[in-house]
Amino acid sequence: MTTALETLKTSSREVHNLAMAAQLLGWDQETYMPDGGAHARAEQIATLAKIAHEKSTDPSLDAVLKAAALEAPDVSTDDGALVRVSRRAYDRAVKVPAELTAEMQKAASLGQHAWIKARANDDYESFKPFLARNVELRRQLAETLGYEDSIYDPLLDEFETGMKAADVNAMFNSIKGDLIDLVAAISEKSDAISDEVLRRDYDKAGQQKFSQWASAAIGYDYNRGRIDEVAHPFCTNFSINDVRITTRYMKNWLSSSLFGTMHEAGHAMYEQGSSQALEGLPTAGGTSLGVHESQSRLWENLVGRNRAFWDFAYGELQSTFPTALGDVSVDEYYRAINKVTPSLIRVEADEVTYNLHILIRFEMEQLLLNGDITVDEAPKVWNDKYEKYLGVTPPNDADGIMQDVHWSAGYLGYFPTYSIGNLLSVQILEKAVADIGDVDPMFAAGNFEPLLSWLQSKIYVHGSKFMPKDLMTQVLGGPMDARPYMNYLTKKFGALYGL
Amino acid sequence: MTTALETLKTSSREVHNLAMAAQLLGWDQETYMPDGGAHARAEQIATLAKIAHEKSTDPSLDAVLKAAALEAPDVSTDDGALVRVSRRAYDRAVKVPAELTAEMQKAASLGQHAWIKARANDDYESFKPFLARNVELRRQLAETLGYEDSIYDPLLDEFETGMKAADVNAMFNSIKGDLIDLVAAISEKSDAISDEVLRRDYDKAGQQKFSQWASAAIGYDYNRGRIDEVAHPFCTNFSINDVRITTRYMKNWLSSSLFGTMHEAGHAMYEQGSSQALEGLPTAGGTSLGVHESQSRLWENLVGRNRAFWDFAYGELQSTFPTALGDVSVDEYYRAINKVTPSLIRVEADEVTYNLHILIRFEMEQLLLNGDITVDEAPKVWNDKYEKYLGVTPPNDADGIMQDVHWSAGYLGYFPTYSIGNLLSVQILEKAVADIGDVDPMFAAGNFEPLLSWLQSKIYVHGSKFMPKDLMTQVLGGPMDARPYMNYLTKKFGALYGL
Repeated sequence: MTTALETLKTSSREVHNLAMAAQLLGWDQETYMPDGGAHARAEQIATLAKIAHEKSTDPSLDAVLKAAALEAPDVSTDDGALVRVSRRAYDRAVKVPAELTAEMQKAASLGQHAWIKARANDDYESFKPFLARNVELRRQLAETLGYEDSIYDPLLDEFETGMKAADVNAMFNSIKGDLIDLVAAISEKSDAISDEVLRRDYDKAGQQKFSQWASAAIGYDYNRGRIDEVAHPFCTNFSINDVRITTRYMKNWLSSSLFGTMHEAGHAMYEQGSSQALEGLPTAGGTSLGVHESQSRLWENLVGRNRAFWDFAYGELQSTFPTALGDVSVDEYYRAINKVTPSLIRVEADEVTYNLHILIRFEMEQLLLNGDITVDEAPKVWNDKYEKYLGVTPPNDADGIMQDVHWSAGYLGYFPTYSIGNLLSVQILEKAVADIGDVDPMFAAGNFEPLLSWLQSKIYVHGSKFMPKDLMTQVLGGPMDARPYMNYLTKKFGALYGL
Repeated sequence: MTTALETLKTSSREVHNLAMAAQLLGWDQETYMPDGGAHARAEQIATLAKIAHEKSTDPSLDAVLKAAALEAPDVSTDDGALVRVSRRAYDRAVKVPAELTAEMQKAASLGQHAWIKARANDDYESFKPFLARNVELRRQLAETLGYEDSIYDPLLDEFETGMKAADVNAMFNSIKGDLIDLVAAISEKSDAISDEVLRRDYDKAGQQKFSQWASAAIGYDYNRGRIDEVAHPFCTNFSINDVRITTRYMKNWLSSSLFGTMHEAGHAMYEQGSSQALEGLPTAGGTSLGVHESQSRLWENLVGRNRAFWDFAYGELQSTFPTALGDVSVDEYYRAINKVTPSLIRVEADEVTYNLHILIRFEMEQLLLNGDITVDEAPKVWNDKYEKYLGVTPPNDADGIMQDVHWSAGYLGYFPTYSIGNLLSVQILEKAVADIGDVDPMFAAGNFEPLLSWLQSKIYVHGSKFMPKDLMTQVLGGPMDARPYMNYLTKKFGALYGL
């Protein structure tokens, strides 16, 4: 006799396989697809999404989930977690009317299209109605999903299950003042560090070689992954055992491929680390965007921008680029990769200013969703916040409120996960150090195995079996806390800038 | 009100999108997938195939097809052809029990696995039961599909709709004697031509550059395609506007990438040439394997191995490989690329011997399916035929009866399409010449547009709207005939070998 759990697994695997196929179609679209393939590709992805949606909202699943919950009541087991995750996804999927989903998809598609043109022409007026429509539809989605405290909560919950706007506000409030002060203090000494050495000529072949060497060194498994070149880098996967990263090579900006690759490798190692028992199930893979980002930022910044790492790696980098770096000491290089510059653009931001970019977006999203400001007022509010927090004022909306693609596609509630990741990365590393000892000597010796093993056993292996909050409580032994991150910044950049 | 035709198109597009997605998964598997991805990939492809099968055998389709046939009774129109093609696929799909399909898939999977090992160990005994099982299941399939004359007919019909074993036998009988005589005559003068120049050092970068240049020159559209490297080259597509080819580069055998690329480009141009009105429908793409092969062989052999083509292309090739070809005249090179060698291995065969390799397989398949020989007797029968037709005797079964993968995967009825393609290629080119004039001066000038346009308007644009036999009758003004091909071989190779 087939148990309800077996039925659930069969159904889950089918939906999962459709989703993985769609992700491969997406990967190919960004990497190798010839221009001519674009129209058909959109249709193919839409077909897979439609069928997956039909299957994951099949009314018969409700009874299967109820029976499976009786068969596997303990949510800490693989099977129990599968039931929990599946129940949540099912309830969410059936709660949202197909019409609203279709409207959101349409608004996202039209919005992205309008955004590309509006940004190129610095024409906020033409983008405004699309932004307004996306905000309105996300309000409808939030009302549909329901909430107790803030209309922001159900939107954030889409990306960071169980997290609330109040948590994020508390987190930012505990460091906002210190962060603004630190940025201001560094800005006064902005000439103390130059990153000119990173802007020399770096040929693509060398960048490819070094990026792959570095990502393999920290533990990204190329037998279960690969790296390709794209315009906008990302990590994607089609199995625990096929997790791919992408990067871009800029001739006169070494950091792009180097730290971009370590960032995506961090995401990828998290995905590669799920227990093989979870393969093909929705419990495989990272548990939330925030926890995911904690791993990309940990490997990019806490490892890659750490002085000890370069004791290990700088010789290799220097020998790869003897012309550009032959006369540059490891200390000069280390300072360059950590230069802080309050700027207009989030994606170019350093470790110190990054979270202020996120804070601005988070505050803007709350104002818009709560109806406290209109889309007419939004550009001015945006610019005022940039002046207040970062001391810079956007000269136009293209590099101001229109710089990110997210809102054009209806992603509201997404940005905070970047900051959650940053904060968690430091808390997690501190906990690891408490268990395995000082990691700097290990990094200096090119030995990343102890750290990776610790992350693997504490976080990666669990996939998304646990809710992010529960997993973090297990790992950290307490709640998320922004102070360790602020302390880390103060110490590291205080030393670099002699504050 | 939705018409039955619209319902049919929606359903067809959905199944088509699933099939195209599965093909991309297959392409990725052969080109870029890391080793770790293999297991999950098989599961993903199986899921897409299962859903596509469910959708294409949905019982409600029968009524839709009936109503659509009334709405579009004229099968020469796009809509009428869609109904015809869909009806045929539906009837075929519902006729074959799911159990038999599953058994065939299992036997194919086990057979391929066993074949790899058996071939490596030259161990026919271990392969024999798997071959027997595949033969038995194809007999069952043939009985299920039904036939009037030969059990071979329904199997051939899977690949070459409307063609019968008797047609193929008649075709081979009309040239078999002459072909064997021609091979024997050439064998006596085997030293007249050397292909040593093709076995010099050809670096991969140069081969890539030249292959792409040549394939683009003849008309393969890289805006709607691309080329990648694989172990076993093929052409695949995910849209009329995304048709990809693959090749392999052998350092000491120039012909592999060069003619392999032109061959696959021929397939690809046929696929790219379908009317855009057929996009996303089962009427897009080539009408049969035989007609498809006529195009790959036309561009590979009748263009690529034609002396006039090298008046255009040899300068480019020589300048790409100055060391290897600097001292080689175009005439010496032309002779080298047309050297005839009766050999054991089909995939390495030249134009003259190729069809005898196919004839042997076609005769073997009929003997096995008719029960005239057993799998025990098969190796000896195979070897006797090689001795009789080609004057060579396999020293072992690995390079004899076990050399091709096809039978291990249950592909019986497939091989004749290779010869059908060869024969048709000459008939089609003769017809084109009758319409557009002598093509040699065009080839010599690098002008392939007149020929491509002719093929495009007569064949490619129609996709699979017409049955292969009907399309060929339209194009050729008469039936398929093997004599033109024999005459072509006799004239070309008579001149080359001074017969």
